[in-house]
Amino acid sequence: MSSIKAKAVMYSSYGDPSSVINIHNYNIDLTNLKSDEIIMQTLASPINPSDINQIQGVYPSKPPLTTELGTSEPSAVAGNEGLFKVIAIGNQVSKFQIGDWCIPSGANFGTWRTHAISNESNLIKLPNDSKLSLNQAATITVNPSSAYQMLTYYIDLKPGDWFIQNGGNSQVGKAAIQIGKKLGLNSISIVRNRPDLDVLKNELYELGATKVITEDENSDKEFGKVIKEWTKGKPIKLGLNSIGGSNLTNMARKLGHDAMLLTYGGMSMKPVSLPTSLFIFKNLTAKGFWVTENIKRIPGSREDTINKLLQFIEDGDFKDVVNFEIDLNLNELTDDDLLNAFKKGLKDSSKGKQIVKFT
Amino acid sequence: MSSIKAKAVMYSSYGDPSSVINIHNYNIDLTNLKSDEIIMQTLASPINPSDINQIQGVYPSKPPLTTELGTSEPSAVAGNEGLFKVIAIGNQVSKFQIGDWCIPSGANFGTWRTHAISNESNLIKLPNDSKLSLNQAATITVNPSSAYQMLTYYIDLKPGDWFIQNGGNSQVGKAAIQIGKKLGLNSISIVRNRPDLDVLKNELYELGATKVITEDENSDKEFGKVIKEWTKGKPIKLGLNSIGGSNLTNMARKLGHDAMLLTYGGMSMKPVSLPTSLFIFKNLTAKGFWVTENIKRIPGSREDTINKLLQFIEDGDFKDVVNFEIDLNLNELTDDDLLNAFKKGLKDSSKGKQIVKFT
Repeated sequence: MSSIKAKAVMYSSYGDPSSVINIHNYNIDLTNLKSDEIIMQTLASPINPSDINQIQGVYPSKPPLTTELGTSEPSAVAGNEGLFKVIAIGNQVSKFQIGDWCIPSGANFGTWRTHAISNESNLIKLPNDSKLSLNQAATITVNPSSAYQMLTYYIDLKPGDWFIQNGGNSQVGKAAIQIGKKLGLNSISIVRNRPDLDVLKNELYELGATKVITEDENSDKEFGKVIKEWTKGKPIKLGLNSIGGSNLTNMARKLGHDAMLLTYGGMSMKPVSLPTSLFIFKNLTAKGFWVTENIKRIPGSREDTINKLLQFIEDGDFKDVVNFEIDLNLNELTDDDLLNAFKKGLKDSSKGKQIVKFT
Repeated sequence: MSSIKAKAVMYSSYGDPSSVINIHNYNIDLTNLKSDEIIMQTLASPINPSDINQIQGVYPSKPPLTTELGTSEPSAVAGNEGLFKVIAIGNQVSKFQIGDWCIPSGANFGTWRTHAISNESNLIKLPNDSKLSLNQAATITVNPSSAYQMLTYYIDLKPGDWFIQNGGNSQVGKAAIQIGKKLGLNSISIVRNRPDLDVLKNELYELGATKVITEDENSDKEFGKVIKEWTKGKPIKLGLNSIGGSNLTNMARKLGHDAMLLTYGGMSMKPVSLPTSLFIFKNLTAKGFWVTENIKRIPGSREDTINKLLQFIEDGDFKDVVNFEIDLNLNELTDDDLLNAFKKGLKDSSKGKQIVKFT
């Protein structure tokens, strides 16, 4: 075999993702591999909300559209997160061996494809002989990395300290619960009221949640007293917000003096609205969090974060929280199979995290 | 003379300031002065919004109610800012001489009175032989100190950098314009539309404003282009907010990447409402500013700030912006005179800063 027939999910214009994505076929030449290059086969490609926004053209971080892969129109490969397996290496590659697992070290790698070629410096090696599951490896760079950095990079939380978050059953929310527990932190997670609330609460308690409350409880002024009993008057030092609107405003009222509020999403489509008094008299600091920017701003932060997460996973008791998997067989994969898998993932992404897996 | 007949404006319960304040007469014994104590005669007592909120009981910083001055009910002297003249000193007092000007170094001093007695360690000396006017000396600790600390304590602004503020014609706003000019900063000040807009604009330009814009201009998306021409694309790094609501939201959209937004007031009674994207994608940091808390949190900050302000004033070209003065003659002062002066000041405080002066 002197070349690999690769397929990639690409777009040449921005718009509704299901309409603008298409499959591009190209060859990866095995005989012409540069000394520091690696050829990889994709194991899993998650679909994140930011991937969707990127294809829509509304995400501030975008890969350039190029004809590098031989497309007739300048195009980009979709996807930013993915797990790959090394299948060939250049003769100067030092960090990787055939069979190793790896993930991109930067953003805009273009992960929705069957194979990729990359300089080894753009890849991070992950252990594939440990307690790390394939799903955990494939989804480590966005949600758990965001949760870890928000819990540790902004305010010095000590074991026994409390944080509060909305979107408690989102991927980041669940990661924050698990990582918080590993760090010895107490958490209050706000979730929407629902018929099967106890099922969700139990799931979060099994992940290590200290307390799970509903939006109704969060909005009830009297409930603040219950929270004060839980925390024994300890100030809640950190809030994680992915919702905005009144949910956030009510959550922010639970924060103690000198607290940090980090906003990493705005699911309600409503603004970050905070009483003036929280700023002036409670010395609140409100900042934003964007993992894509953080890994650029803080050199080594992606690697440091992944190493910490791997350690948590190695220590055990760290649950896999992937929601939906779409399996594809690389040996008999047609363009339609690949396109339809991602279209289905895009369509269902509001129901939970989708991962396209290649076997 | 072995004692001084002093009068103080006091309150023993919280409520409408004009209703709850009353005059208390007491003697300051000159023969029994402790070695480190100073007796002072009041020169000027400003009326600040925070003094009003304190008497209303809605301000988080409150002096304790005591019977220290011989009141029948536990009471506190109103006022937090004031200029005093030293009229007697204990035999170990080292920093002060008779005739010196001084101001309280901390909050909750109780400044609405004719005379006071204090340990010298609670006082800061001001020059009374310089370019510093009596009004400037009397009002240096709240508004100009707030403006100076907001412009210098939170983000490293270099000469030529831009900041933006709403409430441009407030006392803090005017101080920020003057101090900003001294620091070599460019300012954009947002003011309300009014019939005599040009008069106000000219006043602010004479203080050193770089640009003055109206709320209408601030809310017009097209006007952002005009601002970008002014700043030549330089990011606006700092915003000062005393208004909240849509005024603030529109102002925040003018801020550049990595900007700091400081909220020190909420005149609109509406919350600090900010688009989620400013936090996530423009890395905005929003904090509160409260000078009362800052001088506690940062030791030496009141003295440092005042020394810097005195230097600006000494350098010249620093204008006196006091609005309204109420003059009282100490020699023939009745309880009614004193009470009515402060009642008038309270009533008129929405029109501009009021200062009760004792001669």
